[in-house]
Amino acid sequence: MIHLKKMHDPELEESRLDSRPAFEGRMLKVFVDTAKLPNGRTSTRELVRHPGAAAVVAVLPDGRVLLERQYRYALGTVMYEVPAGKLDPGEDPEHCARRELSEETGYKADHWEYLTTIATTPGFTDEVIHLYLATGLHRFAQHLDPDEVIKMDALTPEEIRKAVADGTLYDAKSLAALGFLALLKKF
Amino acid sequence: MIHLKKMHDPELEESRLDSRPAFEGRMLKVFVDTAKLPNGRTSTRELVRHPGAAAVVAVLPDGRVLLERQYRYALGTVMYEVPAGKLDPGEDPEHCARRELSEETGYKADHWEYLTTIATTPGFTDEVIHLYLATGLHRFAQHLDPDEVIKMDALTPEEIRKAVADGTLYDAKSLAALGFLALLKKF
Repeated sequence: MIHLKKMHDPELEESRLDSRPAFEGRMLKVFVDTAKLPNGRTSTRELVRHPGAAAVVAVLPDGRVLLERQYRYALGTVMYEVPAGKLDPGEDPEHCARRELSEETGYKADHWEYLTTIATTPGFTDEVIHLYLATGLHRFAQHLDPDEVIKMDALTPEEIRKAVADGTLYDAKSLAALGFLALLKKF
Repeated sequence: MIHLKKMHDPELEESRLDSRPAFEGRMLKVFVDTAKLPNGRTSTRELVRHPGAAAVVAVLPDGRVLLERQYRYALGTVMYEVPAGKLDPGEDPEHCARRELSEETGYKADHWEYLTTIATTPGFTDEVIHLYLATGLHRFAQHLDPDEVIKMDALTPEEIRKAVADGTLYDAKSLAALGFLALLKKF
């Protein structure tokens, strides 16, 4: 199992004094905790517990990257995103990434590389997304969940850079995954 | 005001049938909505409404980038992050970025460049983070909120790349912001 690299510093660390469940939904659980701060004060911490997810930068043999267009209800817009999905309970993240790639895009990949695991919004949730690079793609068949309505595109690296620059591609996990590769001179 | 670039596609779009407030906290509001999907089915959408935030890649004259170390209660660890903070109601995002940089790091910047706006986790929240590049830094004085306990580092680009590669720097907004610059060959 993959774990975030934890840094310890007693001068910064908080401790839990109390935890109260505030909402339990199908996907999200919300807690209101009371934390003791390192300066001795107490503060309220509202947090959303999430099962975590996996996401894939899937690169075709010609160098194009698979991007999905999907409506995101919370933001009220169709967005570009790399293929991704929530972990099933106890599921290995790479298994999840393979499953989501094949279900959502109809592709399987011969080569899988783990990139990193991101904390999507550490101020209020424990959600992490495990990021992978998939190459050696071959077409299989798309098996969307009945409630998933997704269209797929493949963008060249130049088209990706243009979409990033002009604000068309703004999904954080996608930018983080492609940016991870760019920072390490792999894209 | 900055708006996300919205893509429209009636074959993908959902519509709201019902919205029920499920939790109202100091920072977060949770709603359980019923949405009509483009395939005619209905589905539940759990969403967290968030005021939004701004974050800054602040580069010193010698090329080092300011990174904060801060305890993140939701994840139970100290993390590296670029300076960032929530928008006050109605606040201009660049004003927020300038305020957070000066409060958290004690630096002011002569030059500000808007990079992009990311959707942190579009599957369940409307949170967006406006990303900026700040250069021409000069030291001023740190004015932390009483409940903010933050330590500051400055990492060279090589140290940043190493921290990204080895999983020490995994905050999504920080990776997205640095990755945005790397994708556009500016870092």
